[in-house]
Amino acid sequence: MSKLARFGVSMNSALLEKFDSLIKRKGYSNRSEAVRDLIRNTLVDDRWSRDDEPAVGTVTIIYNHHTRELSDKLTEQQHNHHHAIISTLHVHLDAHYCLEVVVIKGTTRRVRQIADELIGTRGVVHGKLMSTTRQAI
Amino acid sequence: MSKLARFGVSMNSALLEKFDSLIKRKGYSNRSEAVRDLIRNTLVDDRWSRDDEPAVGTVTIIYNHHTRELSDKLTEQQHNHHHAIISTLHVHLDAHYCLEVVVIKGTTRRVRQIADELIGTRGVVHGKLMSTTRQAI
Amino acid sequence: MSKLARFGVSMNSALLEKFDSLIKRKGYSNRSEAVRDLIRNTLVDDRWSRDDEPAVGTVTIIYNHHTRELSDKLTEQQHNHHHAIISTLHVHLDAHYCLEVVVIKGTTRRVRQIADELIGTRGVVHGKLMSTTRQAI
Amino acid sequence: MSKLARFGVSMNSALLEKFDSLIKRKGYSNRSEAVRDLIRNTLVDDRWSRDDEPAVGTVTIIYNHHTRELSDKLTEQQHNHHHAIISTLHVHLDAHYCLEVVVIKGTTRRVRQIADELIGTRGVVHGKLMSTTRQAI
Repeated sequence: MSKLARFGVSMNSALLEKFDSLIKRKGYSNRSEAVRDLIRNTLVDDRWSRDDEPAVGTVTIIYNHHTRELSDKLTEQQHNHHHAIISTLHVHLDAHYCLEVVVIKGTTRRVRQIADELIGTRGVVHGKLMSTTRQAI
Repeated sequence: MSKLARFGVSMNSALLEKFDSLIKRKGYSNRSEAVRDLIRNTLVDDRWSRDDEPAVGTVTIIYNHHTRELSDKLTEQQHNHHHAIISTLHVHLDAHYCLEVVVIKGTTRRVRQIADELIGTRGVVHGKLMSTTRQAI
Repeated sequence: MSKLARFGVSMNSALLEKFDSLIKRKGYSNRSEAVRDLIRNTLVDDRWSRDDEPAVGTVTIIYNHHTRELSDKLTEQQHNHHHAIISTLHVHLDAHYCLEVVVIKGTTRRVRQIADELIGTRGVVHGKLMSTTRQAI
Repeated sequence: MSKLARFGVSMNSALLEKFDSLIKRKGYSNRSEAVRDLIRNTLVDDRWSRDDEPAVGTVTIIYNHHTRELSDKLTEQQHNHHHAIISTLHVHLDAHYCLEVVVIKGTTRRVRQIADELIGTRGVVHGKLMSTTRQAI
């Protein structure tokens, strides 16, 4: 773990009051924690604007498990990418629908490709990629 | 499962060519599947623009498991919301960092609140909410 | 203009180095300026997550000015909302296409409605709403 | 203008009902128009995920015109990029604040750089880039 650094931020007090009210509502314990989160978010977004950065993404897909051969197909796709796919969580939403979260590790480009493939599978009714990071930030 | 409906879409052929090239690259099996996905995305986004819609969200958080008492705190928070939190997936990213995906069910407003609380916990270095749906769409 | 406030932010030096490198690349003059921008962005996003906040939005639409009666229709719509629409910028992109930016003032809900109406007009080929603020933040 | 193409889209009738209700609320005249808009949005997003595509963006910035030398600085910056900057709209929001919309033409990468420079200027209190297209889509 690296050394702790510290710097001062100045702003007009009206802006600071609004920020304090927001972070209280969001449950942050102090301003530093909230500012660090904003900084990490912008760093992750910046990294995902490039193609070949090391990254982790989580894909959430919703599908009807009665769709013929869909579960088998999704399992097969995930095995085809077993080097990149770390783990999968499966939730039974109701009698018909399943939610599956797939955690994928790779370059930003590769994670996007695998996510596209899963989301584009016939029978998947909703899917999205959430971009995060595997680097200590 | 409801009856199948069908309608025609017209567009100039230059636009259709670009769409065909995109959906081929994204791995869709046909245009209907791709159009349905676009429609479902816009419906989910619309639902999440209101406060009291039934919804499911997945929160992905990254944290350092060496942070004092953080794992215990996250577990306790999740138990406090055990009616809303369906399931959790835990991934060991490296010697220090963990990724946790938490699946939350509730109104859009409630899912956002619980997500804010988890993401705002001191020691969580990155966190995001991905909005999806629990309704058959 | 309100009084200047100042507070300290602590983070590990590895995170600070990454932030410094990003803000240098983005052209910020110092850390305070960059942190203020992150805070203002999150405040604006928060405001737009509610329906009845005072807001300003800019809608950018692209359309083909040869589309029959489209220019007239867009002008008429804008006059129907003349209390909310402050100003319009028109750019001739090429022989066929126009870009129009419309600045709209009202509640977040009202700005969204007018934006939807403009973007949904038959013949508008692309349109998006950019949410900003009219409050001093 | 290219030839008109037509294709059929099938979906279950429950999904179609929800789509019909959404596009009615958004003011679309028919399903084709709404589907075309979804397709164009996804094409524009896809183009902006790459660095060297021809693009148009509109940057909206908010600033206090009393900030010393800020107006001059923004004007100078825009002149430095006069090949890329097509036009600017200026709105007087209140006694202190101005809104400026700047239309920029170039590669996606170049438009982002100029937007970053404008948004990062000391004294600009809020700024965002809206990505659109200059190609007939």
